[in-house]
Amino acid sequence: MKQTGLAAWAVVAILLVFTVPGLAREKAEISPQSRSCLGCHKNATPAIVTDWQNSRMSQTTPAQAMKKEKLERRISADAIAGNLENVVVGCAECHTLRPETHADSFAHAGQKVHTVVTPEDCAVCHSREREEFSNNLMAEAHGNLMGNPLYDALITAVNGRLSLDENNGLSQHKPDEQTNADSCLHCHGTKLTVEKTAERQTSMGPMEFPVIRGWPNQGVGRINPDDSRGSCSACHPRHRFAIETARKPETCSQCHKGPDVPAYKVYSVSKHGNIYNAGKASGKWDFSAVPWTVGEDLEAPTCATCHVSLLTDANGRVIAERTHQINDRLGRRIFGLPYAHAHPRSADTTKIQSKDGLPLPTALDGTPAEEFLISKQEQQKRTRTLQQVCQSCHSTGWVQGHFNRLANTVETTNDQVRTATQILKKAWQTGAARGPQSGASPFDEPIERMWTETWLFYANSVRFASAMGGADYGVFAQGRWHLTRTIHKMAKMAQSGAGSNRQAP
Amino acid sequence: MKQTGLAAWAVVAILLVFTVPGLAREKAEISPQSRSCLGCHKNATPAIVTDWQNSRMSQTTPAQAMKKEKLERRISADAIAGNLENVVVGCAECHTLRPETHADSFAHAGQKVHTVVTPEDCAVCHSREREEFSNNLMAEAHGNLMGNPLYDALITAVNGRLSLDENNGLSQHKPDEQTNADSCLHCHGTKLTVEKTAERQTSMGPMEFPVIRGWPNQGVGRINPDDSRGSCSACHPRHRFAIETARKPETCSQCHKGPDVPAYKVYSVSKHGNIYNAGKASGKWDFSAVPWTVGEDLEAPTCATCHVSLLTDANGRVIAERTHQINDRLGRRIFGLPYAHAHPRSADTTKIQSKDGLPLPTALDGTPAEEFLISKQEQQKRTRTLQQVCQSCHSTGWVQGHFNRLANTVETTNDQVRTATQILKKAWQTGAARGPQSGASPFDEPIERMWTETWLFYANSVRFASAMGGADYGVFAQGRWHLTRTIHKMAKMAQSGAGSNRQAP
Amino acid sequence: MKQTGLAAWAVVAILLVFTVPGLAREKAEISPQSRSCLGCHKNATPAIVTDWQNSRMSQTTPAQAMKKEKLERRISADAIAGNLENVVVGCAECHTLRPETHADSFAHAGQKVHTVVTPEDCAVCHSREREEFSNNLMAEAHGNLMGNPLYDALITAVNGRLSLDENNGLSQHKPDEQTNADSCLHCHGTKLTVEKTAERQTSMGPMEFPVIRGWPNQGVGRINPDDSRGSCSACHPRHRFAIETARKPETCSQCHKGPDVPAYKVYSVSKHGNIYNAGKASGKWDFSAVPWTVGEDLEAPTCATCHVSLLTDANGRVIAERTHQINDRLGRRIFGLPYAHAHPRSADTTKIQSKDGLPLPTALDGTPAEEFLISKQEQQKRTRTLQQVCQSCHSTGWVQGHFNRLANTVETTNDQVRTATQILKKAWQTGAARGPQSGASPFDEPIERMWTETWLFYANSVRFASAMGGADYGVFAQGRWHLTRTIHKMAKMAQSGAGSNRQAP
Repeated sequence: MKQTGLAAWAVVAILLVFTVPGLAREKAEISPQSRSCLGCHKNATPAIVTDWQNSRMSQTTPAQAMKKEKLERRISADAIAGNLENVVVGCAECHTLRPETHADSFAHAGQKVHTVVTPEDCAVCHSREREEFSNNLMAEAHGNLMGNPLYDALITAVNGRLSLDENNGLSQHKPDEQTNADSCLHCHGTKLTVEKTAERQTSMGPMEFPVIRGWPNQGVGRINPDDSRGSCSACHPRHRFAIETARKPETCSQCHKGPDVPAYKVYSVSKHGNIYNAGKASGKWDFSAVPWTVGEDLEAPTCATCHVSLLTDANGRVIAERTHQINDRLGRRIFGLPYAHAHPRSADTTKIQSKDGLPLPTALDGTPAEEFLISKQEQQKRTRTLQQVCQSCHSTGWVQGHFNRLANTVETTNDQVRTATQILKKAWQTGAARGPQSGASPFDEPIERMWTETWLFYANSVRFASAMGGADYGVFAQGRWHLTRTIHKMAKMAQSGAGSNRQAP
Repeated sequence: MKQTGLAAWAVVAILLVFTVPGLAREKAEISPQSRSCLGCHKNATPAIVTDWQNSRMSQTTPAQAMKKEKLERRISADAIAGNLENVVVGCAECHTLRPETHADSFAHAGQKVHTVVTPEDCAVCHSREREEFSNNLMAEAHGNLMGNPLYDALITAVNGRLSLDENNGLSQHKPDEQTNADSCLHCHGTKLTVEKTAERQTSMGPMEFPVIRGWPNQGVGRINPDDSRGSCSACHPRHRFAIETARKPETCSQCHKGPDVPAYKVYSVSKHGNIYNAGKASGKWDFSAVPWTVGEDLEAPTCATCHVSLLTDANGRVIAERTHQINDRLGRRIFGLPYAHAHPRSADTTKIQSKDGLPLPTALDGTPAEEFLISKQEQQKRTRTLQQVCQSCHSTGWVQGHFNRLANTVETTNDQVRTATQILKKAWQTGAARGPQSGASPFDEPIERMWTETWLFYANSVRFASAMGGADYGVFAQGRWHLTRTIHKMAKMAQSGAGSNRQAP
Repeated sequence: MKQTGLAAWAVVAILLVFTVPGLAREKAEISPQSRSCLGCHKNATPAIVTDWQNSRMSQTTPAQAMKKEKLERRISADAIAGNLENVVVGCAECHTLRPETHADSFAHAGQKVHTVVTPEDCAVCHSREREEFSNNLMAEAHGNLMGNPLYDALITAVNGRLSLDENNGLSQHKPDEQTNADSCLHCHGTKLTVEKTAERQTSMGPMEFPVIRGWPNQGVGRINPDDSRGSCSACHPRHRFAIETARKPETCSQCHKGPDVPAYKVYSVSKHGNIYNAGKASGKWDFSAVPWTVGEDLEAPTCATCHVSLLTDANGRVIAERTHQINDRLGRRIFGLPYAHAHPRSADTTKIQSKDGLPLPTALDGTPAEEFLISKQEQQKRTRTLQQVCQSCHSTGWVQGHFNRLANTVETTNDQVRTATQILKKAWQTGAARGPQSGASPFDEPIERMWTETWLFYANSVRFASAMGGADYGVFAQGRWHLTRTIHKMAKMAQSGAGSNRQAP
């Protein structure tokens, strides 16, 4: 921009282009079907409509989206069905897709509408993301939890009602479905099934709607009425579907705040989190740019930066390809079950069996169930992918130092879990507590709860703190202080026989 | 805006109107009295002055504020006294109001000034808000706590000093006033009384000031020197009084962060909280608009959205009327005492008595003290008001599913609290612990603390997590894991007699 | 700006001045040495380069920085060496300074480069800040922790591995170096030593790099390869070095989030924190202005406001001078060891000895080690400096009331810690636990852990909550509830002899 006699006009022209939305763009039309939805729903559910109007979906057709350069493309399908290509992605475009596959599809205002939009629906435009996501542990989060008999015992111990029996002992009841939906399955995903239809009064008169068991739910591993798995809405919420939201760590915090998976807590006191929290409101970060340029669009990584997003540097060089298989850049699973281990090969973990016959990736003595886990080579490959991201901002020496320290922490925490487990096994042997060998739950008695906390809460926190630099979560806040404190208490309890909550016969 | 030859001038005109503040507005004058305050206080307390200058109060007269359309009005009085109507709301307008009612009024620089501005002062312009607020449990938060003998025992057990007596037993002392002010009454509100006046050196020479016992304090239930109750500053802090601040959940977090009332913690990991936290800095949310338009001004609800604000949709239709009686949209009180219950009828809860004679809304077996609580019909009415807000963004099926799940959670958590209470009662009966029947505190011994935590910390967390979608607070973070773990420990402790911290005689 | 015929041109001119960066500024050149670094590093570590390009350092020369008015100056040196004065502060300007003092200096692309930039390097321009910082407890954070035999016992108990011996007793091992670096020393700072050099493949071919033990680390008390102490990067992170970041409380949260030092947690639920969190994204706060004008640039204080920054009022009057000795405005150390006490005189606290011969600022009965602590007079002076900041926004009566209440809380919490300590000492005397007199660690047995928590977690939380207004951290969240609960449990444990985790002989 030069200071010539034309400058005033240039300013005006620039202002006009930026303030009259779409002036310079092709026209993006709403389909007649979606217009029909909007006719009533701008009154029935007004903020859904406004939310959608503020979204990228309402302003772009798939045809327009596909014209972008490869790195800038936000949709991955090679071709879009003709009737969807040249209209914006509106209500009908998603909620009437593939009605024959949707058990929740119902006749509504002249269309076959379904309530629950699923990854299979989204895959029409985002086929690659859907594919990657289905290789994700999260996609199987429902089954991996509910189909594992050991985790089932944990759920029962946590969620089931306890009542006093006539001898003042506690009776354990099975948890009800709503309680599970309200707790574990909030994140892991419920199973959605259409129970019946019911008539409801609406502003348009009486109408029939399906009643869906397990609804509402946006868990990542939700089992959908079209039998698909997952919910894109877990990270791309509501009708904005905004990449800006998915890239912010607050989104991940919904399920990863601990104490079992304290990723967000740790991040928020890490240097990365500090820079993010101090900088996000500065107006200088761009959370919507595709590709995402490190240093320019963001000054410090969020969860998505390291684990998901397509990253480039300021010269346009690709630093990491986008992936929706979150463990694609993770060699090791620091979430111990009960020990940290190499990531499982398959997203479905229900088939995993440890050498002691437990449905766990590591045996109680720590031996990994190697045949079900990725190879050393694959681990190294994934770790290198992550390290590429680190090296955008850090020297090789820094990165190596960091990963060496993490490796040491994985080893020492596994070792502490081993000590805790040995104490528990002794308690089971001596009868100080009743374990699985006596047909009892391994998760109900005080010493068993303490053992569970050593790996599920404390060793995990220590490892997350090590991986992401959230020091105190590795020490006084849920870390080594609590890990060693609990082992001391368990040792004492095992000796005194005080671990059991059942009276001696 | 058309691209004609006049466009450049239009831009200039628009820029001028928006950049020269007040150009298009009527002149809003500062009263001579307030000018006199500002004369010294811009040096004495400079940031109070700047804060006020940035406020809406300093830029608008009540007369101007009353000219707004009904839905846009920020003041609710029908008429304002003549001398206040045409000046901005400055120092003197609030701090010299109604001097005859203010025990803290004192002669200062030629005026009768009082330190503590109270809801009764604010009511001159905000009469309706003051009225609603006084029907609020919060307005009686001081008395409801301090006037209840059972809560008094709790305060003593928590805040009172413990010393070792000659037999190495613990002696319990009554807590001192400053300790209570520093803890419970920080939120519940202190009682402010003028003790004396004292001379202090100031930059204007020696001056006399009242010394106010209980000061400073902004607790919601503060008992003021004019004998009114409450503090508007609790939510509309300092001299900005900004609606923007009150509408942000951080404001509520001061008193509602738990573990007893973990509303903010739960919100911050809920989908609502995630969208808020990801979006609030985007510059696209408008926290000051009155009325507040769902979908347009905000993409996800904050505390105020669901519980306080006047909401409209994009078509201007009212979704919810403003209320400063916070439980106006809440049928059920999920904060258990010790069980969740229907909201009390009266803001003053000191008269409530359960069937077992306790000053609690539910008996120890869970029976609600129905005559003191709102009716089923009133509960349904309030719940429907809240659901109207939900339905701005969610379908009826979603909302029903959500509320059904919450109802189940209320029932199951109440049931678990019942089991914990039965164990405690047994312990009292067998002498494993000394309860109220033996004249002892129900809040001092280890088993009694565990019992208190089952309802005050854990069952409450589970219910808040259910109500607001903060899953982990219902499970591992202060939820069902801890609830069942504690019940198991209590059962064991009751059997072994280990619950008492007193030696057997 | 008047609405004359020239206004359109004025707008254009203004827009140009603000949109073409640097048009009105002197040219700020990058040195040839730094240009050489950038040549490769824009590819090797691209986001470091972008980060630096966004920094003030990359856009200003020391000569330009020194021309500012005194209050606006961001550098404190009186003179800058000639070769640094007229180039921007680039890679080479910091990473090649004083090579003879840097054990980590190595030949790299024709320059003598060092990895670790230290406070001594920064002192070339920021001499006064470096000086003040070295008087800071934090500057000695490594030695103060690692050189204290009592803290060494704590580190061992927390970080050392525990293994089961043949008698099912626990054996305590010494913690390894990496574990300490990953936990305590993350904040306290590691000791950096050059172990060796190693060849690495780079995009420029094979190169030699130093391998630095203890790296990476940004702890405030880091011991550097030039034998200096500290890391400016702890608060001024990465290559933006932004004052904006250091002034935001998130930065402090990395090390001060508790439960041992819950400053950030408390702040975030305080009125100050609420206003900050509600306001920081409004675009109305200026976190980069020097000096920092209370009321104008900020509406509520952050950590830096009260403890570090140069503050003025809107009239330009200085309210507080900048200090990098953080306890310069703090008379009392509310972080108890184990009792709250006057601040130590010297930054190096390893010489402190209590009357009972312990390396602690207070004896086990609470008596302060006065000769090592600042005088009453000095305490009052520092407190008055802080109160000057308070009085920007609060009246004298408010401030006095607040500090009186804090003084009471310090006394009552110290008193509760005394009771807890008496119980522990009894347990040591009766043999219920094995203490230092029997040559055992005071930090391993359950009753010892409980004792440590009474002061390190609970009494500290109560005091921080009192100091900063974070009520619940003084009550149910880590406060008095837990303090009294733990004392009751300790009393019971001491009586039953259950405190020890060692079998009776």
